[in-house]
Amino acid sequence: MKIGFIGLGTMGKPMARNLAKAGYELIVYNRNREKAQGWPDGAKVQVAGSAAEVAGQADILFTMLTDDAAVEEVYLGKEGLLEGASGRNNPELLVVDCSTIHPDTTLKMAERLASAGIEMLDAPVTGSEPQAEEGVLTFIVGGKPSLYEKCVPLFDVMGKKAVHMGAQGAGAKAKLANNALVATTLIALSESLALVQKSGVDPRLFLEVVAGGGARSGMAEMKGPKILGRDYSPQFMAKLMHKDLKLASRLAESVQVPMPALAAAKQVFQIACNLGLGDEDMSAVAKCYEQWSRIGGQHS
Amino acid sequence: MKIGFIGLGTMGKPMARNLAKAGYELIVYNRNREKAQGWPDGAKVQVAGSAAEVAGQADILFTMLTDDAAVEEVYLGKEGLLEGASGRNNPELLVVDCSTIHPDTTLKMAERLASAGIEMLDAPVTGSEPQAEEGVLTFIVGGKPSLYEKCVPLFDVMGKKAVHMGAQGAGAKAKLANNALVATTLIALSESLALVQKSGVDPRLFLEVVAGGGARSGMAEMKGPKILGRDYSPQFMAKLMHKDLKLASRLAESVQVPMPALAAAKQVFQIACNLGLGDEDMSAVAKCYEQWSRIGGQHS
Amino acid sequence: MKIGFIGLGTMGKPMARNLAKAGYELIVYNRNREKAQGWPDGAKVQVAGSAAEVAGQADILFTMLTDDAAVEEVYLGKEGLLEGASGRNNPELLVVDCSTIHPDTTLKMAERLASAGIEMLDAPVTGSEPQAEEGVLTFIVGGKPSLYEKCVPLFDVMGKKAVHMGAQGAGAKAKLANNALVATTLIALSESLALVQKSGVDPRLFLEVVAGGGARSGMAEMKGPKILGRDYSPQFMAKLMHKDLKLASRLAESVQVPMPALAAAKQVFQIACNLGLGDEDMSAVAKCYEQWSRIGGQHS
Amino acid sequence: MKIGFIGLGTMGKPMARNLAKAGYELIVYNRNREKAQGWPDGAKVQVAGSAAEVAGQADILFTMLTDDAAVEEVYLGKEGLLEGASGRNNPELLVVDCSTIHPDTTLKMAERLASAGIEMLDAPVTGSEPQAEEGVLTFIVGGKPSLYEKCVPLFDVMGKKAVHMGAQGAGAKAKLANNALVATTLIALSESLALVQKSGVDPRLFLEVVAGGGARSGMAEMKGPKILGRDYSPQFMAKLMHKDLKLASRLAESVQVPMPALAAAKQVFQIACNLGLGDEDMSAVAKCYEQWSRIGGQHS
Repeated sequence: MKIGFIGLGTMGKPMARNLAKAGYELIVYNRNREKAQGWPDGAKVQVAGSAAEVAGQADILFTMLTDDAAVEEVYLGKEGLLEGASGRNNPELLVVDCSTIHPDTTLKMAERLASAGIEMLDAPVTGSEPQAEEGVLTFIVGGKPSLYEKCVPLFDVMGKKAVHMGAQGAGAKAKLANNALVATTLIALSESLALVQKSGVDPRLFLEVVAGGGARSGMAEMKGPKILGRDYSPQFMAKLMHKDLKLASRLAESVQVPMPALAAAKQVFQIACNLGLGDEDMSAVAKCYEQWSRIGGQHS
Repeated sequence: MKIGFIGLGTMGKPMARNLAKAGYELIVYNRNREKAQGWPDGAKVQVAGSAAEVAGQADILFTMLTDDAAVEEVYLGKEGLLEGASGRNNPELLVVDCSTIHPDTTLKMAERLASAGIEMLDAPVTGSEPQAEEGVLTFIVGGKPSLYEKCVPLFDVMGKKAVHMGAQGAGAKAKLANNALVATTLIALSESLALVQKSGVDPRLFLEVVAGGGARSGMAEMKGPKILGRDYSPQFMAKLMHKDLKLASRLAESVQVPMPALAAAKQVFQIACNLGLGDEDMSAVAKCYEQWSRIGGQHS
Repeated sequence: MKIGFIGLGTMGKPMARNLAKAGYELIVYNRNREKAQGWPDGAKVQVAGSAAEVAGQADILFTMLTDDAAVEEVYLGKEGLLEGASGRNNPELLVVDCSTIHPDTTLKMAERLASAGIEMLDAPVTGSEPQAEEGVLTFIVGGKPSLYEKCVPLFDVMGKKAVHMGAQGAGAKAKLANNALVATTLIALSESLALVQKSGVDPRLFLEVVAGGGARSGMAEMKGPKILGRDYSPQFMAKLMHKDLKLASRLAESVQVPMPALAAAKQVFQIACNLGLGDEDMSAVAKCYEQWSRIGGQHS
Repeated sequence: MKIGFIGLGTMGKPMARNLAKAGYELIVYNRNREKAQGWPDGAKVQVAGSAAEVAGQADILFTMLTDDAAVEEVYLGKEGLLEGASGRNNPELLVVDCSTIHPDTTLKMAERLASAGIEMLDAPVTGSEPQAEEGVLTFIVGGKPSLYEKCVPLFDVMGKKAVHMGAQGAGAKAKLANNALVATTLIALSESLALVQKSGVDPRLFLEVVAGGGARSGMAEMKGPKILGRDYSPQFMAKLMHKDLKLASRLAESVQVPMPALAAAKQVFQIACNLGLGDEDMSAVAKCYEQWSRIGGQHS
C-alpha cells in the first residue's frame, strides 16, 4: 500500500513524517518543493512533481491544505488530484482531506471525486504543530463507516484519537464548531488576564487559580503561560484562526444559529490581523487587550 | 479555638459541616434558622441567635453570603458582626469572608473592621455545591500573609487548594475575573453545541472531540453532558453568575479594561434571567440558544 | 424607447407603475404572473412570458429582485436575460439592477453581460414601499458616468434623488453600508425604547426628546411610532434586512473592516427571524427586546 | 427674582450667559473662579464665593456639573448648596439640576433637599456646546408639574424645547437612554464610514445617500462631515459620553434590560478613551475604526 500526502506545511510535514517513521511507503507533493525534502533515515518517500502524479499512484491520499481555495486548486485544478486520478489503472483511491474548510466545499469536492469513482473522507484535526509532531492529533471524521475503519490504523499513527462524526461533511462541521469554541475561550482568557493585571493581581497566581476550578481550559493551560511570557511564536497562526471563524460564522448563518459571543470574538481576531498580528500565534490576540488596557507600556 | 460560621446556604452549610467533621468546635448563625440544623453525629456545633453572638465568641469567623448587600447587613447592621465584636474581652478576631462581592465592598468592610481592631481576609472560592461537599474547593485569598498562614489548616479541611493572591481585595478581584472566564466559556460552549446540533452532528460525539483537544474546558466537561441531558438542577444558579458578571464588569470599568466578549455573554445571562431561568443552573443559558435556534421544539 | 422591468414585487411594482404613469412604454416580466397585472388606465404595458423576451425588446432594462440567487437565475438562467439579449438585432441594451445584492455578484453579472456586449449599472435604492409608491426613492448608482446620465430622467420619475457613487459595484457597496447603518440604528432605538419603558418613562415623550436632538434619526421618526403602536405591517421585512446584514458582513470581511456593533445587531435579526418575525417589518426586532425585558406581558 | 447658576463649564457658561442676556439677575459660582468672569455688557451678574452663598440668595438655582461625584460634592459638601440653603430667611428655593447623572443620585439629592424643605427638578439637556450657545437646547425634565411650569420661561431662554417627562428622576432616565442612542448611532456611523472607505467608495457621496434615506440621523448630519474632515475638536468629549454610557448600562442593569448593541458600543468608547482620545470629540471613536481598518495610514 502506498500513501499519498499533499500539503507539507506546519501540520502536514510532521504528519507525513510520522507515517514514514511507522514504515509506510509515501508519495508526496508540495507546491514549494523545498518543503518536500528532509525525511527520516530509511524512510521510503518518493517526491512527486504534481498532485496528479500522487493521485495516479497512491492507494490512500491525505491532503492538508491552507484553505478552501487551495483545496479547490489541488483537487480540481490543472495537474490536480482529479486529473491524476482519471488516468489510474487501479480505480480504488481513497482521498482523506485533513484541511479545515467549509463543509460546502467538502461536499462539492466529494461530489466531483465521486463522479470519477473516487471515495473521500473529511478528517480535519484538532491540535497544532506540537501535537502533529508528537503524533497526538485528534481526527474528526465524516464519511462512510467502512472508509473510516480502513483509515483507523493510519489515524493511530498520526494521532491519539479519531472520532467518526457521521456522514460526509460532519467532520468539517464539527471542526469549525470546535475552533469557534477554542477562539472564544482564548478571547475570554485574554480578557480575564487583562482584568487581573490592571487590577494589580499577579496573573501567574491567577492562572494557578484557574487551573484548579471550573474556569480551567486547554487554552488557559497551553496559551496562558505563553501570553504571560510574551511568546507568540506561531503554533497556530492568528490569521488561520480568523479564517476558521469566518467559516464557522458562515456555517452558523446557513443553519441559522445566532452566536453573539463568537461574533464579538471574531471582531477581535479581525482587528488583531489588521494590526499586523496575523502571522503570530493566535494567542497574540492578547496583545490587543494589552494595547486597549494600557498594560506594560504597550500603548502606542 | 472556636470557629464561627455565618451563612449556611448551598455553599456555606457543607463547608461548615466539613469543619465540624474534622473536629473543630463551631458557633454558627443563619438568618433562616432551619438551615442551622442538621449536623454530623458528635459534632460540636453551637447555634447562635445573631451574627453579633458569633462575633463575640469565635476566634476565626467565616462568612459565606449571597451578595454585597447581605455582607454589609451582616457586618455593619444591627446585631451584626461589628457590633458583636465590639464587646469582646479577647480582642483577637479574624474574619474570613468567602462571599463573592465587589472588591470595593471588601475594602470597605476591612476598613470598618480594622477600626475596631479586627483583622480580615477575603477568601472567595471556586467550585460549587459538589466541590463544597467533597471538600475540594479552591480558596482565593487576599490579605496579610500571616493571616493567610493562620487559616491554611482550615482551608485544607474545606478545600483542595488555597492560593494567596496578594493584599486585601486581591482574592475578591481574582474571583470576579475567574467567574467572567467561566461564564464566557460556558456561553461559547452553548453556542458551539447549538451549532453542531443544527448542523446535524451528534453533540455527544462533539463533546468527545472537544475533550481531546485545545477546546477542552472545565465547562465542557462538567456542564456539557448536563446540557445535553437537559439537567439544569442548580449547582450554581444563573442569577448568581449574572450578579458576578455585573460585578466583574464594574471592576473592569473601574480599571478601564474593555471586555467585549464578557459584555456579549453578560447580555445572554440577563436575557436568561428575564426568561425565568435565573433559579436554574447557570448552564441553563443553553436554553436561550435552543430557543433562538429552534432546537428540539423549544421555539415558542 | 422601450423600458423593460423584471421583478414586480413590493418595490418593483410601484416603481414600474410610476414609469408607466409618466408615459413610458413598458415590457415587463414577473415569475408570478398575477403580479404582472394591474396597471394605470392608458398605460402602455406589455407583459412578457420570460426574462429573455424582455431582454430581446427593451432599450433600458430594470431588474428589482430579492437576492443574489434570484439575480443569477434571471440573468444567467434558462430563458434569462443573457439568453434573450443574445438574439437581439439592435445590440444596445442597458441593464440597470436595482436589487440589493453582494457587489461580487454585481461584478460577475456585469462581466457576463459585457462579454455579450451589454452594458450595466448597479442602482440599488434606499427607501421602502411607501417611498417607492410616492416616487421618492434614492438611487445609489455604480457604473460608467455616461450610462448614469442616460438613466437620470428615469431615476427622476421613480425617485427624488440619484447619486453616482463611482465605478461598477460602488452602488451595491454603498447600499450595504447604508443598510448596516439603518439596522444598527434601529436596534439602538429598540434598546433605548425598552430602557425608558422599563424605567417607567413614557416612550412617546422620549421620542419627542429624541426628535429634538442629536439622537434623532430616520428610524426614530419612521419606526418609533410604529413600534409604540405595535404596527409591524411590513414595509421592509425583517428577513430581507437580515439578508442584507449578512451581505454587509461579508463585504466587511472581504475588505477587512471590523464592525462589532453591526455584528451584535445582526445576531438580534437572526434571533428575530428564528422567532418567526421574519415576514414582519424590520422594526419587529423591537419585539425581541420586549420579550427579553418582560415588557407588556410579552414574556412567554 | 434672582437666578443662581453653579457650574460654568463648556455647557453651563453659555447657558448662564443667555439668561444674563435676557435680563435676568444672576448669582453664580464656579470652583475655578476664572471661568466665572466674562459676561455681556450690562449683565447683572454677582460672583459668589461658594455654592452655599448662591443657595443663600437665589430663588431658582441651576446646576450644570460634570458627574455624580461633583453633584454630591456641590449639593452635600462643605460650603455646599444644602448648607447654604439651611440659613435662608425665605425658605422657597427651587433647585434645577441640568447635569447628566444616574437617576439614583438624582433621587438621593432630591430627598436630602426635601428634608430641608427645598424643591428640585432634574432637567438634563440634549445638545452640546453650539446648541448651548445658540440657546437651542432641549430640556428633559422630571419632577412636579407646578415646578416645571415655573421654569418654562427660563427653559425658553436657554433652549428651544422642554419636555416634562414625569416624576422626579424621569428626566435623568430619559437623558441616559437618549445618550445611549446617540452613542450607538455614532458607532454605527463610524463602522459604515470605514466600510465604504475600505470598499473604495467616496464617503462624502455616501453621506449624501445617507441624508436622503432611512439611514439619516443627527449624528450623520452633525458628525459625518467632521469625521471626514478629521475635525475632532470637542463639542462633547468622548470621555463624557463614555461616562454616560456607563451610567446608562447601570440603569439598564437595574431595570433588567439587555442592550447588546449598547454593550458593544460602550467597549469601543472604553478603548477610545484608553487610546488617549477621551478629551477629543466623541466622534473621535471613528479613529479606532481607522486604525483597526488600516485607513489613511493610521495603522501604527
